[in-house]
Amino acid sequence: MSRVLHELTVELGERSYPIIIGQGLLGSYDLSSFVSGSQVMIVTNETVAPLYLDRAVGCFPGKQIDTVVLPDGEKYKDWQTLNMIFDGLLESRHTRKTTLVALGGGVVGDMTGFAAACYQRGVHFIQMPTTLLSQVDSSVGGKTGINHPLGKNMVGAFHQPEAVLIDTDSLCTLPPREVSAGLAEVIKYGLIRDIRFLDWLEAEMDRLVALDASAIAEAIYRSCACKAEVVARDEREGGLRAILNLGHTFGHAIETYAGYGNWLHGEAVGTGMIMAADLSVREGMISREQCDRAAALIRRAGLPELPPAGMTPGDFMELMSVDKKNVDGELRLVLLDGIGHAVVTGDAAADNLDATLARFCRSG
Amino acid sequence: MSRVLHELTVELGERSYPIIIGQGLLGSYDLSSFVSGSQVMIVTNETVAPLYLDRAVGCFPGKQIDTVVLPDGEKYKDWQTLNMIFDGLLESRHTRKTTLVALGGGVVGDMTGFAAACYQRGVHFIQMPTTLLSQVDSSVGGKTGINHPLGKNMVGAFHQPEAVLIDTDSLCTLPPREVSAGLAEVIKYGLIRDIRFLDWLEAEMDRLVALDASAIAEAIYRSCACKAEVVARDEREGGLRAILNLGHTFGHAIETYAGYGNWLHGEAVGTGMIMAADLSVREGMISREQCDRAAALIRRAGLPELPPAGMTPGDFMELMSVDKKNVDGELRLVLLDGIGHAVVTGDAAADNLDATLARFCRSG
Repeated sequence: MSRVLHELTVELGERSYPIIIGQGLLGSYDLSSFVSGSQVMIVTNETVAPLYLDRAVGCFPGKQIDTVVLPDGEKYKDWQTLNMIFDGLLESRHTRKTTLVALGGGVVGDMTGFAAACYQRGVHFIQMPTTLLSQVDSSVGGKTGINHPLGKNMVGAFHQPEAVLIDTDSLCTLPPREVSAGLAEVIKYGLIRDIRFLDWLEAEMDRLVALDASAIAEAIYRSCACKAEVVARDEREGGLRAILNLGHTFGHAIETYAGYGNWLHGEAVGTGMIMAADLSVREGMISREQCDRAAALIRRAGLPELPPAGMTPGDFMELMSVDKKNVDGELRLVLLDGIGHAVVTGDAAADNLDATLARFCRSG
Repeated sequence: MSRVLHELTVELGERSYPIIIGQGLLGSYDLSSFVSGSQVMIVTNETVAPLYLDRAVGCFPGKQIDTVVLPDGEKYKDWQTLNMIFDGLLESRHTRKTTLVALGGGVVGDMTGFAAACYQRGVHFIQMPTTLLSQVDSSVGGKTGINHPLGKNMVGAFHQPEAVLIDTDSLCTLPPREVSAGLAEVIKYGLIRDIRFLDWLEAEMDRLVALDASAIAEAIYRSCACKAEVVARDEREGGLRAILNLGHTFGHAIETYAGYGNWLHGEAVGTGMIMAADLSVREGMISREQCDRAAALIRRAGLPELPPAGMTPGDFMELMSVDKKNVDGELRLVLLDGIGHAVVTGDAAADNLDATLARFCRSG
């Protein structure tokens, strides 16, 4: 069965693009109208390739299709692996009219998008995100890039796709831990901007964790619509868009401390959002009850509530100081100014931050 | 003595920037108004650093200045060397408000510009080109990038500088071979678009080869103005801008065959322009006398007239087929349609191309 359940447009002027959400779309939905030339390079990884590569090929009838299969995992989000894409493109003589296709999760999407941004100074690309996290997060916004040993996503580009195709069937093969990681970002949209969506999530969380198809498609649609609205207002991350980083400053520190790939991005963001909510209480911006409500929803999604054992406040301070959200060395954080409303601040009191870190770092 | 001789603006809407040309500007011209934050990272190479790094620092009073010194040469225009810039930025905790400064020739400019395009998804940069080639070519246009073993400049980005500072004094330490390589691009502007500039170059070539300061400053200014006009009309290389590639398709093949760095880019372009002129004669677009006139001027600039010994027509065909200027496999070339006027064509007759390659490949 193949059916489109939701469709929306990310409004970015001449760079606007559609997000098509449905069941059974991989292998049946024709994307060839989004391919500018005759060449398509599908980039995927060794986990996704045996599951979905054949079907993805079916979305591009009549095109020359080549493939690059990357190793799977955040630890491969580096120059060496990125070069596998460039090697494949050049060996198969892809011109600047080629179209890259990212088939996989956030790592495949970020790397393929960055390769598309850089190959011959920029070619087209299409996203086919197969994980919940990438469907609700990295498929909207145009952020692409790779990691550096000294920080996540430190090298990259803004590069918008021509289209995003989301097939909810691809979630059936996703490990439960990755479903929870995706739900962290879904909850984030409710926390930062949409109290009614947060209410809906509290009502539907059990169905979401069980991967009920219509509930999941609705959650993806509302998440993408929320992010698309924020990105459309602030494509290059000048202001509003920064609220999308709720939980990410703490979360990036956790990911770096744990070693890339040991904690899932969404898991780290889940814990990071609870920490941000705790700091928001200390700053007098939300009540302790509101913080507990956020923490409870994150817990019901199956996410961890505490950073890795052994991680100290000093680790956090060290790792957060190279975070991109800092302006001239000032530590900028996204906090909750009421539930369903986030703000960016550089003014959090040092002793409040210390208190939050002390509470969450069990060995600290 | 420090004086500004010429100044022009590259008109690109909100990305417009000035080019300041003069004598003694390194160390005396204050560029701090082009720095958005408090941090400056000067990127240079081990040849240029002992000559000009101290002076360059003097252009940024009151800023935090860090430096990265790269190895010198086209063969280092790769991922590994690019990573030295990212390492330096992250080790010194540069934020997304940092400004990168490229102090050196085209390789330093391309790599620093690309690092600026990618670091934290894009930061500001300033160019201080110290070679004639980079002053008249890569300082205008926003092209940045690195090489791949299978092709030059295959990975890169369009990223415009905040300002370009050209100090003609820096040419005094340039080897004569590099002066000639720079003059190849200067001659190119006359050939593709400006017959009066070509007349002027024929009159002034002896003074230019001897590095007469006022003649060189004028040649740089007219070259930058010509390129700026072309780029302003076609920032992303959709059409007109392609004429700037006169001689480059043949030239890139020569550079790749010779191994990066063994032939200077300008030397390869000089020979490539003579080959393009020869093919233009065979295509009935210019006379043999016009071709000889172009070849004579290129020769007077001290440039080679023939490709490397041993390079065959087959080598050219093989290496030109991955050139970026190809659209869906068609070989597109820039030819002269009259002296002082270039056109882009995918229609050159195969037997005419064969005849040109046979004439220039001595061992073929």
